[in-house]
Order: sequence, then C-alpha cells, then structure tokens
Amino acid sequence: MIQTDVLVIGSSAAGLVAATTGKRVYPDKKFMVATMMPKTLIPCGIPYIFGTVRNSNNDILPSDTMFEANHIDVIYDTVTSIDKNNRTVYFKGEEPVGYDKLVLGMGSTPVKPSWLKGADLDNVFLVPKNKVYLDEMQEKLKTCNRIVTIGAGFIGVEISDELKKAGKEVVLIEKLPNVLGLAFDQDISGRVQQMLAERGIVIRTGISVKEVYGRRKAEGVLLENGEEIEADAVILALGYAPNTGLAAKAGINISDQGFIKVDDYMRTRDPHIFAVGDCAEKRDYFTRKPVPIMLASTACAEARIAGMNLYKLCAIKTFIGTISIFSTAIGNTGFGVAGLTENRAIEEGFDIVTGIFEGIDRHPGTLPDAHKQYVKLVVGKESGFILGGAVYGGLSIGELINTIGIIIENKIAINSLLTSQIGTHPLLTASPAGYPLIKAAEAASSQIMFTH
Amino acid sequence: MIQTDVLVIGSSAAGLVAATTGKRVYPDKKFMVATMMPKTLIPCGIPYIFGTVRNSNNDILPSDTMFEANHIDVIYDTVTSIDKNNRTVYFKGEEPVGYDKLVLGMGSTPVKPSWLKGADLDNVFLVPKNKVYLDEMQEKLKTCNRIVTIGAGFIGVEISDELKKAGKEVVLIEKLPNVLGLAFDQDISGRVQQMLAERGIVIRTGISVKEVYGRRKAEGVLLENGEEIEADAVILALGYAPNTGLAAKAGINISDQGFIKVDDYMRTRDPHIFAVGDCAEKRDYFTRKPVPIMLASTACAEARIAGMNLYKLCAIKTFIGTISIFSTAIGNTGFGVAGLTENRAIEEGFDIVTGIFEGIDRHPGTLPDAHKQYVKLVVGKESGFILGGAVYGGLSIGELINTIGIIIENKIAINSLLTSQIGTHPLLTASPAGYPLIKAAEAASSQIMFTH
Repeated sequence: MIQTDVLVIGSSAAGLVAATTGKRVYPDKKFMVATMMPKTLIPCGIPYIFGTVRNSNNDILPSDTMFEANHIDVIYDTVTSIDKNNRTVYFKGEEPVGYDKLVLGMGSTPVKPSWLKGADLDNVFLVPKNKVYLDEMQEKLKTCNRIVTIGAGFIGVEISDELKKAGKEVVLIEKLPNVLGLAFDQDISGRVQQMLAERGIVIRTGISVKEVYGRRKAEGVLLENGEEIEADAVILALGYAPNTGLAAKAGINISDQGFIKVDDYMRTRDPHIFAVGDCAEKRDYFTRKPVPIMLASTACAEARIAGMNLYKLCAIKTFIGTISIFSTAIGNTGFGVAGLTENRAIEEGFDIVTGIFEGIDRHPGTLPDAHKQYVKLVVGKESGFILGGAVYGGLSIGELINTIGIIIENKIAINSLLTSQIGTHPLLTASPAGYPLIKAAEAASSQIMFTH
Repeated sequence: MIQTDVLVIGSSAAGLVAATTGKRVYPDKKFMVATMMPKTLIPCGIPYIFGTVRNSNNDILPSDTMFEANHIDVIYDTVTSIDKNNRTVYFKGEEPVGYDKLVLGMGSTPVKPSWLKGADLDNVFLVPKNKVYLDEMQEKLKTCNRIVTIGAGFIGVEISDELKKAGKEVVLIEKLPNVLGLAFDQDISGRVQQMLAERGIVIRTGISVKEVYGRRKAEGVLLENGEEIEADAVILALGYAPNTGLAAKAGINISDQGFIKVDDYMRTRDPHIFAVGDCAEKRDYFTRKPVPIMLASTACAEARIAGMNLYKLCAIKTFIGTISIFSTAIGNTGFGVAGLTENRAIEEGFDIVTGIFEGIDRHPGTLPDAHKQYVKLVVGKESGFILGGAVYGGLSIGELINTIGIIIENKIAINSLLTSQIGTHPLLTASPAGYPLIKAAEAASSQIMFTH
C-alpha cells in the first residue's frame, strides 16, 4: 500500500485546482491525484471540438504538466472503492492508497433518459467528458448530415451552433418555451433563439420528443404531436448527473438530489473527506436552496476553498453559496447571466425592480467592431441589493458579467454601484456617460425612488 | 433676466451627466445648460478622429438630443462672469441667468508650455477639446508627412498611433524614461513601447525637447543633446490644465494645484455651487492627496454624485476619492490600470506584495482570436487590501480593469478575491483554472503567507 497525505480523485477542473491549490498552501504535504483519463478535456471546450477548434486534441487540460510542475503524483487508474474507516482508496489495477485527506472531484455524467425509446440506437450520442467517446462520435458524425439535438441548454445550443458551422443541417428541440430558458429571461433567450435561427438552425421549442426511431441506427425522431423529423444522428443534451456511486457505497452522505453533501468548507461529514465540483452539493447564494448548477468556474472556486482549508480552517474562506455565472457566445455576440434571473427572483418571492439599458460597447458607436451592449439588473426593491444581472453584446461581456458577479457576491448595493468609478475607452468600452452597467443601475434606482 | 433652478456650465461628459442625472432625480426642477460649443466632442475619442474614425463629425456627444429628451434647456454662449452673491451668471450675448444651484463643469485646456521656444510657430498643434480647432488641424496635417509628438501620455501615444495608421512618419518624444510612465509600471509601459516601435513609430524616451525650430512654420525640433529631428508638424501633448479662471474671479476657492476645491459631495464652499470633472479637485483614494487625474469616466462618477445631491444629501453617495482607471488600446491589444501602480505604492510608503499571472483569454488557447492576458495586482501586505491592478491582453481587458476597479473601490480583500466566483467560457475568457485575475490573487497571497 502506498501512503499519501492528500489524495484527490478526478483530474478535471475541480480535481486539478484542488490539488494545485492544496500543494501551494501546504507545500510540505505529499499530494496524489487519481484519474481514469490519461488526457482530460477542457470541459466547457467540448462543444467547440465539433467546429471551431476542430479536434479534441486541441482541447486538453494541461493537467499533466501542472501536476508535474507542482510535484503532485498521478495514478492513472479507476477507483473501485473507498474505505473511509481505514482511509484507504482501492484501484482496479494499482495498489491501494492510504490518505490523510481525500478530495472527491469525480464530476458528472450525461443523463441518458430511460423514458426515451430508441436512446440506445446507433448514432444516438451523449456528450460525456470523455475523449475516447467524443473522438469516436466526431468520426461517426463526419458521414452524418442531418443532426437533431434534443435539449437546448448551453451544451445543446453550443454543439448545435458548432455543427451548423461545420456544415451540417441541425434541428434543435427543446420542451421548454425558450432555448436556454432556465438560464435567461425571455429578453435574452429570445435573442439567442433569433440568432440561432438566422444562422440556419431549425428550432422547435415547447415540444417533447417521444422517441428516436430507426432500425439499428437512428433515422429520425418522433415528436409528441406525431410529427417525424428525419436525422442521421441524434444528440442527447439533457443535462448531467453527479458521479456519486463510489461515495454512496462508501457511506458518505448524499443529498436528496443526489449530490455529495458538504459544509461551507467543502467538507463532507467525514472530517477527512472533501468534495468539490459537479459531484458536490451547491446551494443558491440568495435562498440557500440546493441548486443543480454544474459549472467549471464554480468547481474551481470550490476547489480553491477545499485546497486552502485541507489542514486548517481559514474562516474567511467560507463558501457562501453559488452565484451561477453563465456565459456563452454565438458568432461575435456574447451572452451572460449572473445570480438570479427576473423570473427566478419573482418565483422565489423577491420584491424586485429591474433596470435595463442598451448602449454600444465602443464610443463613438461608429467605431469598427462596435456592438450593442445590453445590461439588465435585478434589484431587491427594499434592500437595494443586486440579485442578478444579465448582459449581451460584443465578446467583452465575458468579463463584464464577472464585474456583475463580483458586485453580487460582495453585496454592493445599487446606490454604490450608481456612482461607481469605472474606466472607459473609445476602442474598449461604452462611453462613460452611457456605460450600460451604470445606466441600468440608474434605471433600477429611479424605479425604487419613485415607487416607494 | 432668466431664472432657473439649476444651471450647469459645460456640456462635455461632466456637464451632460450632471444635468441629466439631476433632472432624473429632481424632475420637478428646471434645468439649464450653458455651453460655448454647438457640437461637443467625445473627449476620449479625439485621438481617433486622426485615423480610425476619420472625421470629428463621427465623434460628437449626443448632448443636444439628450438635453431635449430630458427637457433641459440649452444656452449656446460664453459665460463672462459668475456673481455668487446674487446667484447670477452673465453671458457674452445672452441675457443673465439667475440660479438656485450652479454646477461648474468647465473642463480643461491643453498646457501650452511657456518654456518651449517655437511653440507659437505654424503647424505646432495642441489637442484641445474643440471641434473647430481640431478640424482645421486635421486639414493642415493632410499635407504634413513627418510628425513629431512631444509627450507620451495617453493622448500623445494614441494620437501618434493613429497618425501612423493614417500613413504618417511619427516620432514620439518623452522626457520620462518610459511612454505612459506615469500610468503604468515598466512591465506594461515597456510592452506598449515595444508595440508602438513594431508599428513603426520612432520613440525617444528620457530626453527633453529644447525648442521647435522653423521660420514661420515648424521645420523640426531640437533636443537637449543638440540633435535635430525634422518635422512638418509638431503636436504638443503635455497635459491639460483645469479651466478655473471664471471660478477664481468669482471668489470660489481654488486649490494650490489650481483646481476648484470641493467636498465629498462635489460642493464648493458656496453651498449653491458644485464643481465636477477636470476643473474640480480630486483626491487619491488611498492617500487623500490631491491628484491631477483628468478622466471622462471620473468626471461622470462625480457628475452623478453632484446631480443626485443637488437638493438633499444622500449620505451614501459620498465621493470616496479617485481611483484612476485608465485604459487604452494599440491594435488589438488593450492596456488598463486601476488604483496604485507598484511604483506609486512604494513611493507612497505602502508595504506591498505584487501578484502576477499571464494566461490566455480564451480556452483552449488554440481558439481563434486568443490573446495573452496579463494581470498584476498590488496588495497591501498586512491589510490584504488590493491597492491597484494593471492588465494587458485582448480588448476584453477594457471590462476586466473595471472588475478590478470595483474590487478596489469596495475594499474587497485578497482572500475574498482568491475564492471569488467568476464565470468563464471558451470563446470569451481564460479558463476557470487559469483565470488570470484569480491566479494573480493567488500569487500575491502566497507571498503574504510565506513572508509573514
């Protein structure tokens, strides 16, 4: 049996960052990572291997290099069980590893719907974070022209857009009334939908798929209204489920929703075991309700907290709940959202106002490369707290949504935001007099003032 | 005599935002703006009229439309004097205006150095915020091929780069050791300098100009070492001085540095008179020392505070000092800085560490349009406060530097930043595991931990 101080299971974003952060903070401890995958994919890059980046070899996390540079040992093998009483992890091939601290970063697996007839046919694909599977899928898709994607969350939307770019005919089917309907309000999801349509993707919302039909191979999908859509391949983008089988078998607490239960320091109830990333339970920042958010960025924040708190608690590093921050791009237009949408806030019972402003992300707006920049803020009417924000515009909104994330996380009230100092430049941002984030804050503030 | 509730002098960023904010918050008050300029230029856009936006007509602030939309009256005339005892402003042509509240947003004028022989020759230009002057200058520059710019602050650098783009031969002369040497540390200013040189601009730093020579017209400049550089035109980009003549004559307090003295609510000592923007005194956020920062974005933040506080003080809207946030771009590379540079922090006596990280602003880095993204944070060693940040990278750094600005302004400590939740996306940002802002925070934090 090998002995280590810290064993991390998983080498994707969560595992990688937990191990490297831990080693940075506790350089004298021996760290080891166990992973099934010799090459770990950058998870959010997966849709882009079907178009823009062309090949999964261009989408590899530099885990190996980082582990080596940080003197972290790696075991390439499958974990078969965890014995938490004896603090030992067992492997398929390698000898067991004894640990002092164990970090579970086992990620998630695509949901394969048991209710969907035909889901096992050939050319019906999931989108797992698995290079071997995806390489084979990509090879098979070469001979497929008509693709149906089921599920218009981020992965479904992104992969559809990429396959369209690669020259395929794509139909995207979503049972909710809007694409990205869980992430965005209708103001933004409507725009995403319009852009996808303009790019030639056929979109069917508000309708369910009843079955995938075909003999051996998928030949099309049957909708609940009896309509048939022919297809050479079908992609199931119906979300992901946490990988918690090993943890459950080991007697580690699992939540009702199927995630590993953790405290604010990412500790399970076993003081020697932490869990981070997709397999760990998340709670909403504003309601403390469990939320099934799976984001590499959230995983990294959690992994940093776990890594720092492995051997001592640094009180200020509590994880104060998940502010889901999503962003994506279609062509040269970016879309982002942080915190609560207007719909979610109202559903949860918050008394809110919204402030909206649409400006231009260069000034003067006649500059080349100028895009509209739209900002919506969701603000607590009595508290003045910013509960959420959503944006679209040029690609710089990827950073702008993080400004809003920082504002939410640090409970900066609307009145402070209103007079915040921001920097502007003709070639980089909107004008100082028309900076959409500040103007949206003004719009929200006016409503609070005049409705009290 | 005309009577108004609020009179704003100036229609550039400061005046425009003071008037429109004031009207939003006090819709029942009568607002009036007095301006000399029928067309106000977007100030930070001025360098770009010489290249990218081609013509000053493409760089006009939409003040007229905004005043009309907000029911704000405008007087196009020159103010001749202010009688603060009788609360009356006198004009060259128009009849006097009586006010209840007066907001001074009179801006600044380029410094014309009395020590520089030949500064009055033809084809020696300043860069005033004056459309008539700039149109004439642009016309004259058409026949000039060899341009010398004296002063490598933002205006000097930007105008040189634009004139080079427009096909001119440009020599940029700076007496400090580095271009943009007041705004950036050597790590970034060195890179700016290298980029400008690669674009064919001849840069001479660490040397002063003794005189501009020529008969009637500038024919070149003589350096302090005796060297001559031939030129068809010379541009003096030596900074700006606040326009405070009228205020001084009216008996309004002026600081030793020549700015109108204001309190945290942008009020002068006369309770009926406010001052905002370039003509108003600014104090550094960290030291409270007066600083000669002139930025449209700062002016707008001040103007919002003045506008909101015209008739009642909303305590939370105090102006807590100026965090200078500068950004600029050369080609597709953006540069930004917020708060204190490393040099300034050390000069001021702060006990600091710095954290630096260079990553890539897309992930995987093989995606098209990926740029390096460099972040440096200056952190108080004992306090953990973030005193400053500087960045360069793709054009999204224009928004990223504002995230850093918000972090500084809200005193978010390094430990909170370290585990901040950020959103990432392959086409929009760096990877979650290698997000430069967080990695720079880690680098700073490690130094604090291991040096205590």
